[in-house]
Amino acid sequence: MHSSLESSKAYQAVNPITGLTLSEAFMFSTKQEIDATLVESMRAFDIVRAMPSIARAVLLEEIAGQLFAQKGAIVERAALETGLSAENRLSGELDRTCAVLRIFAAAVRSGDVQDVRITTADPSRTPKPRPDVRRMRVGIGPVVVIEASNFPLAFGIIGGDAGSALAAGCPVIAKVHPFHPGTSALIAEAVQIALAKTGIPSGFFAAIHGRGEETISLVQHPLTRGVGFTGSRTVGMVLRRAANDRSRPLDELSLEMGSLNPVFFLPGALARRGSELASGLVEAVLLGGGQFCTKPGNVFVPTGGEGDAFLKALSSAFQRTTSPTLLSPRFAEQYRHSCKALLDLPGVSVLARGEEESLSASSARPLLVVTDPETFMREPLLREEVFGPFSVVVQGPTEVLTELALQVEGELTATIHAAQDEQLSAARLASALAAKVGRLLFDGFSPGVELCDGINHSGPWPSALGRSTVVGTTSYERWLRPLCYQDTPANLLPPELAPDNPLDLCRRVDETCEF
Amino acid sequence: MHSSLESSKAYQAVNPITGLTLSEAFMFSTKQEIDATLVESMRAFDIVRAMPSIARAVLLEEIAGQLFAQKGAIVERAALETGLSAENRLSGELDRTCAVLRIFAAAVRSGDVQDVRITTADPSRTPKPRPDVRRMRVGIGPVVVIEASNFPLAFGIIGGDAGSALAAGCPVIAKVHPFHPGTSALIAEAVQIALAKTGIPSGFFAAIHGRGEETISLVQHPLTRGVGFTGSRTVGMVLRRAANDRSRPLDELSLEMGSLNPVFFLPGALARRGSELASGLVEAVLLGGGQFCTKPGNVFVPTGGEGDAFLKALSSAFQRTTSPTLLSPRFAEQYRHSCKALLDLPGVSVLARGEEESLSASSARPLLVVTDPETFMREPLLREEVFGPFSVVVQGPTEVLTELALQVEGELTATIHAAQDEQLSAARLASALAAKVGRLLFDGFSPGVELCDGINHSGPWPSALGRSTVVGTTSYERWLRPLCYQDTPANLLPPELAPDNPLDLCRRVDETCEF
Repeated sequence: MHSSLESSKAYQAVNPITGLTLSEAFMFSTKQEIDATLVESMRAFDIVRAMPSIARAVLLEEIAGQLFAQKGAIVERAALETGLSAENRLSGELDRTCAVLRIFAAAVRSGDVQDVRITTADPSRTPKPRPDVRRMRVGIGPVVVIEASNFPLAFGIIGGDAGSALAAGCPVIAKVHPFHPGTSALIAEAVQIALAKTGIPSGFFAAIHGRGEETISLVQHPLTRGVGFTGSRTVGMVLRRAANDRSRPLDELSLEMGSLNPVFFLPGALARRGSELASGLVEAVLLGGGQFCTKPGNVFVPTGGEGDAFLKALSSAFQRTTSPTLLSPRFAEQYRHSCKALLDLPGVSVLARGEEESLSASSARPLLVVTDPETFMREPLLREEVFGPFSVVVQGPTEVLTELALQVEGELTATIHAAQDEQLSAARLASALAAKVGRLLFDGFSPGVELCDGINHSGPWPSALGRSTVVGTTSYERWLRPLCYQDTPANLLPPELAPDNPLDLCRRVDETCEF
Repeated sequence: MHSSLESSKAYQAVNPITGLTLSEAFMFSTKQEIDATLVESMRAFDIVRAMPSIARAVLLEEIAGQLFAQKGAIVERAALETGLSAENRLSGELDRTCAVLRIFAAAVRSGDVQDVRITTADPSRTPKPRPDVRRMRVGIGPVVVIEASNFPLAFGIIGGDAGSALAAGCPVIAKVHPFHPGTSALIAEAVQIALAKTGIPSGFFAAIHGRGEETISLVQHPLTRGVGFTGSRTVGMVLRRAANDRSRPLDELSLEMGSLNPVFFLPGALARRGSELASGLVEAVLLGGGQFCTKPGNVFVPTGGEGDAFLKALSSAFQRTTSPTLLSPRFAEQYRHSCKALLDLPGVSVLARGEEESLSASSARPLLVVTDPETFMREPLLREEVFGPFSVVVQGPTEVLTELALQVEGELTATIHAAQDEQLSAARLASALAAKVGRLLFDGFSPGVELCDGINHSGPWPSALGRSTVVGTTSYERWLRPLCYQDTPANLLPPELAPDNPLDLCRRVDETCEF
């Protein structure tokens, strides 16, 4: 196998606060390495698929344990590479990542992942005897996980995408994000320790370094069966084209491409608790430096007294914000560029700015702009996600804003703030938005995705591609396919389907059509 | 709206037995009609998604009732258009179609389709209160169903694909197969009666006439969200390319493109019940005129005494078969062409033929060819599906045949026949085949798909595309996406998610991660 050193491309991470490169160098993976990695993945897949599925639960729990054991080092390195706060953000993000892995382990142990369905034989049925039919779900094969920039741990090389794939029985080939290679290297080592401890082949998890070219190679590799990506719409579109060019289609292309997460305020809600809502909105726009895919990017506020008072309160609260450090100097530069382009549009003006930029090399000054419904519909730029502490406020008559809700594209979330006596307007808005979003919120704010059984984090195109949530319990649905055994001798059945299965995974027995 | 009469393309069905065109003429749908149909579909989708989901169960039951009421006329017309036996085949196929619709209705009533998951709020949780999170599954939007040629009822305009889409809450635009437009017209009328009776907008179901051009228009229409297709690999590939060219991707492209359904015989099984297996295999190859997607197309027989005796029995049983009528004179011509091309290959010889061709215009003389493993691997033609009463027998040492199992492409099914004392060989074969198939059978034959909860009818590429079964209970999975309501006032929740939901659809309450 080729050594990484044959690659001519070395790179270093950048500290977004100082703007200086960090000392450790990483090598881009070569074509040969990528190919050898996929071959190893497929070999590991074939070994692991013969193991009882419980082995994957044990692996996930062990990975969570290893990550937790390395928490200090991982969080410290991630803070250096991302500028995110170790204490206020990354420590919690690591805890959450471990929690997610344990949730997936529990879903394997409970049998939710395998979703066993058994129909027993009925030799006396006429006109034809009924066979014994037993179904479970199995992994599709090697899954490429492309790390997100904004969640170095929760959607890093072993976050929600990778954990759900491992739960499904799929080996993971993780493409390291060039913003945080050192963090990912520490995590990859923790995962390898867990693999060694649990007897799973080391090829069941691999990390690949690179940028566009290497990513495309992974997406187009003949042995790749699924791809999970969280990132920008631009990159998502490139990945879709790359997937379309494959001769064997992917079984799953899961893209989460961001969202504007429109927020609709009705006058009664503003009258009742306008100042509370103003500070809630400011917090939601600033959370994680405005780099959350659930950040409210379009805010709809009614004309009239309540709306005007709300904008005043919003503006005043927003002016007290300070400039966050974005994930890289490049992001900060893109942010300034986007803000300038938006402010150059006729009909768009500054509603409020945060405090002057800090000395950070990746500082982004918070900005709220305001516009009217006509301008909003005329200028597509106002309906594009801006990564950073920015949002667009659209002020107009409530009926006009309700009409705009019908024009919304696919979104991860939408939010409605309504008072008790505005339920008819709220119902109309909700009905229009239900067809456009993955999650509909009332009286709250969209950032933060609860890790519960009922969560959905996905949405109609162009916010996402794929019919499953990409965050939370059921995100493993993406990497599974049904496999059915008919009239199989008991000793040849996989343990999950065996009559004396000690895990009692079978939830259904004997539902059949007497045809 | 344009009238069908403006279309210049009229067509008539052909009676495959007489080869004569049937009198009634049908018009290809125009571009304008297709566009107007999709707009109507989306309108109907928006109306139906606001209805309680139980409305779809009532509709499906009503459609089953209307089909059953029209059974005589539908079966009679289908027999004329397809050459299939009214009594021995189509009558049962109609019953089965009605049964499938009722299974989908039951899945809506039981809540399996909606898959509700509720996590209730916990205001006391620290550090942040837990929100109320309620998830259900909703339809993706308009689904184009492309009728199969070989199951005019079960996979006709209102069979498994269309029924599962309606269950999911998706309007159906069915592309009529040009072999049986009269059958489809009768069914479409029955469906419209059911829609009118149950208060569902008529646009929730539509039939489109056409061939390639019209099909591509449907697949590429911007309002289309899903496509279901059962047919040939060639057409499946064309549909994939058409889908790739969309600017908004489909949420689901479900292709079932046929299969070789390899059958592996081990010597012990042949020794114990060779002649029974020989007649079973002959029946499986001839069922439906050899036009089942589960027909055994590649049969692996060991060298040695048991294998030789089996081939003798097989040959003798096969010679007693008679020539079936295929679905059209064109299919019969293609069949003769394929047989000739296969017999022209060096290393391929006739094992047995059925009795001389009948007077039917679409008659196909049954043919079994035999070859060796080397020829089998060398000639790709031997690994391509032939529609009709044909199969390829490969004779070789069992170890070599087991190696061939590793080379198999994605298949809908594979079958292993092994005796009690051959379980180690069977286990090795099963392990190799489990990664390649959707359904693994023992000691039986693959044609016939039991309509039970545990069935899977799909398989890895190139037998199918899509991660769900396309036949049976859970085939509705293809047309659903999750939709989550967070902190929603009780009076704005859809009935399925309401706290006092009388259907008690909620299977899970309160599973969450205390993070």
